[in-house]
Amino acid sequence: MSFEEMWADLLPIGRDPDSGGYHRFAWTPPELECRAWFVDEARKRDLEIETDANGNLFAWWLPADSSRGDAVLTGSHLDSVPGGGAYDGPLGIVSAFAAIDLLRERRVQLARPIGVAAFAEEEGARFGVACLGSRLLSGAIAPYRARGLRDRDGHAFADVLTRHGLDPERIGPDDDLLGRIGCHVELHIEQGRALDVPVGVASAIVPHGRWRFGFTGEGNHAGTTHLKDRRDPMLPFAHLVLAARQAAERHGTLTTVGKVEVTPNGVNAIASSVTAWLDGRGPADDAVRRTVAEIHEAAQKAAREHGVTVDLAEESYSEVVGFDTTLRDRLAETLARSENAAQPSGPEPSGGPGSVRVLPTGAGHDAGILASRLPTAMLFVRNPTGISHAPAEHADRDDCLAGVEALTIALEELAGGLEEPAAGLKAPAAG
Amino acid sequence: MSFEEMWADLLPIGRDPDSGGYHRFAWTPPELECRAWFVDEARKRDLEIETDANGNLFAWWLPADSSRGDAVLTGSHLDSVPGGGAYDGPLGIVSAFAAIDLLRERRVQLARPIGVAAFAEEEGARFGVACLGSRLLSGAIAPYRARGLRDRDGHAFADVLTRHGLDPERIGPDDDLLGRIGCHVELHIEQGRALDVPVGVASAIVPHGRWRFGFTGEGNHAGTTHLKDRRDPMLPFAHLVLAARQAAERHGTLTTVGKVEVTPNGVNAIASSVTAWLDGRGPADDAVRRTVAEIHEAAQKAAREHGVTVDLAEESYSEVVGFDTTLRDRLAETLARSENAAQPSGPEPSGGPGSVRVLPTGAGHDAGILASRLPTAMLFVRNPTGISHAPAEHADRDDCLAGVEALTIALEELAGGLEEPAAGLKAPAAG
Repeated sequence: MSFEEMWADLLPIGRDPDSGGYHRFAWTPPELECRAWFVDEARKRDLEIETDANGNLFAWWLPADSSRGDAVLTGSHLDSVPGGGAYDGPLGIVSAFAAIDLLRERRVQLARPIGVAAFAEEEGARFGVACLGSRLLSGAIAPYRARGLRDRDGHAFADVLTRHGLDPERIGPDDDLLGRIGCHVELHIEQGRALDVPVGVASAIVPHGRWRFGFTGEGNHAGTTHLKDRRDPMLPFAHLVLAARQAAERHGTLTTVGKVEVTPNGVNAIASSVTAWLDGRGPADDAVRRTVAEIHEAAQKAAREHGVTVDLAEESYSEVVGFDTTLRDRLAETLARSENAAQPSGPEPSGGPGSVRVLPTGAGHDAGILASRLPTAMLFVRNPTGISHAPAEHADRDDCLAGVEALTIALEELAGGLEEPAAGLKAPAAG
Repeated sequence: MSFEEMWADLLPIGRDPDSGGYHRFAWTPPELECRAWFVDEARKRDLEIETDANGNLFAWWLPADSSRGDAVLTGSHLDSVPGGGAYDGPLGIVSAFAAIDLLRERRVQLARPIGVAAFAEEEGARFGVACLGSRLLSGAIAPYRARGLRDRDGHAFADVLTRHGLDPERIGPDDDLLGRIGCHVELHIEQGRALDVPVGVASAIVPHGRWRFGFTGEGNHAGTTHLKDRRDPMLPFAHLVLAARQAAERHGTLTTVGKVEVTPNGVNAIASSVTAWLDGRGPADDAVRRTVAEIHEAAQKAAREHGVTVDLAEESYSEVVGFDTTLRDRLAETLARSENAAQPSGPEPSGGPGSVRVLPTGAGHDAGILASRLPTAMLFVRNPTGISHAPAEHADRDDCLAGVEALTIALEELAGGLEEPAAGLKAPAAG
């Protein structure tokens, strides 16, 4: 089963025939079909399948001595944002299975296990909290809080787990499982245009968060309510959108209002409430914090002017995540060595050892969540257009195959029998 | 079956238990339940039930000689806006049945038929065109255009009709039915705070329309796309909202952006498109036209600045509708006479004969659509808060009963046997 064949199998699942965008939300039929595909691929390779209490899936290739400790984990996630692209998530999983095939073709003997992970609800598109599976696994979200999360149809996360054979009372950190993992390397499509070579290594995830603004006014008839009698929440919402862009320009941050819910959302009715989600990211915590504070202030001012109230809730916030520097450097050096072996001449480009680029990202990832418990690193595959979270998201086939090769080399370096277990694989204290 | 009993029967149908708002969209289960209620009430009164080819329901009380011509039609509609109030529509129908009961109690002999109408899809909440049933009946919308309308789940109007036993090829103007109707008097809750007595008579419906703005940008990742690389349609949409308010203030019109659809509507995705609906009304056509033109210009300017395209579609526009002046004056005089008879002393307030208020409205109604084919008039019942199209929409019980009394007197005047058929009941040429 080649990379291309696996890719072709996944491609139609959950794809909107009109837009070409994917709708694979955690535990909905398309995502369940992706999980079934994952289990099939694991079985074809005689990998040991494990579902943890948080709904994360693992497929383990154990070494000859069947030891389970000090494993090298790779993989990514199967779920998508609404109308997302094909690569965000699945590329890391398909590449992981393809890398295992290459390691076996090359008769690499394992000194420690290799695991392929499919983390649950990475995008947070169903229950609102990104990286929910890895947050639960690592203790970054309290189980009681996760249990109470609801999707837009009102289904509680706890009930969805129960319906799929999991016990909501058992969710939460799993120190036994984490204790068996020596390090985690997630391969992912790069989500901007920061990478000008096929494969790069991540340095850090910049601070990022989600804030929910709830504007409450007074529903009324659009044709009979005088302007002065209106308490229309759409107006302060519009001010919020413009203030968000202005604050981002001022502070060198990124802000996006991409999700809005209007009640009742009728053409001839003044809205009674508008809920808007702000996504904010930036190079440093204080810049992001200042950006959000200014937007909140502008929203409050506009709300007051229109007789509307505004509530602000921080749905999630992640401070800057630096990946494990030893693991990062080891990956970069391994990739550089292999490229130099393949292309022995030519000048050395900047950005890392050999031609290897080391770059930060504005996107959140399970590897960023797990970094609090494990040495983690990421490999990025070039995104020629920079488009992500949209149907046009794309990586060239050659770059994907270069990603598979890089992951194969990385896994051989980290789990192969010919190498000594190296520095940088010790987990820091949980935090 | 008293007014109160009928009201209590309808009250729970399609009501959201949390918000108290109604969701009675044409041919959805709650609206079908309301239709079943209508048929029951008609049967209890031995009225002749008729469903026209356009899905409008009628219940006819025929005079002793069973003649069907020159009928006096009353009634309103059963459907609601999303999260609407209990009174908008159903008040006119409940009042019509209650008025028939009073006429029979008073042993009024009919000289011509009285009909109770429940017009289909008055709010346009399902298929986007307000007064769809009366538009089809009167020829104000082309049948082929109506057949192609789709609801938000993609169901075509034609298919919905078929599923409910109607033939979509037969929809359209019904001159036979219209030819049997001498005049139409719709009772409705007033939708602003313009009425300071229990009951008033409508003078005109001010010009009003709906415009759809489609902003198309480029979907992308919220965390990795530089501000300068974005084509975010949310930003020109926000400018549209603010420009709409400013233009309304400038021209003395009313504008509302109450409905928005965002694609893909994900927290961490820059929207690829935003569709916004503008509701615009005003005292005169040119003021409304100028308002919309300025909003369109502002939207185009903001769209250009953000690399976004914008399309504008006029979904509907109704020029000023003057109700039949003869019928209006006859109603006002009849009501004034009956009030003077009940309260023989006291000064005469301004606004119409006796204490009768004659007032325009910014809301569209089936009676406004039918005015192109028939003499039509409206009675308004006081709205103490001015709230409409929202759960808090309310009329006091005493005012509702005053409305029933006014409608009873009006129907007696127009259809009763003791009066000569009077002027003002001849239909103008269709136009």
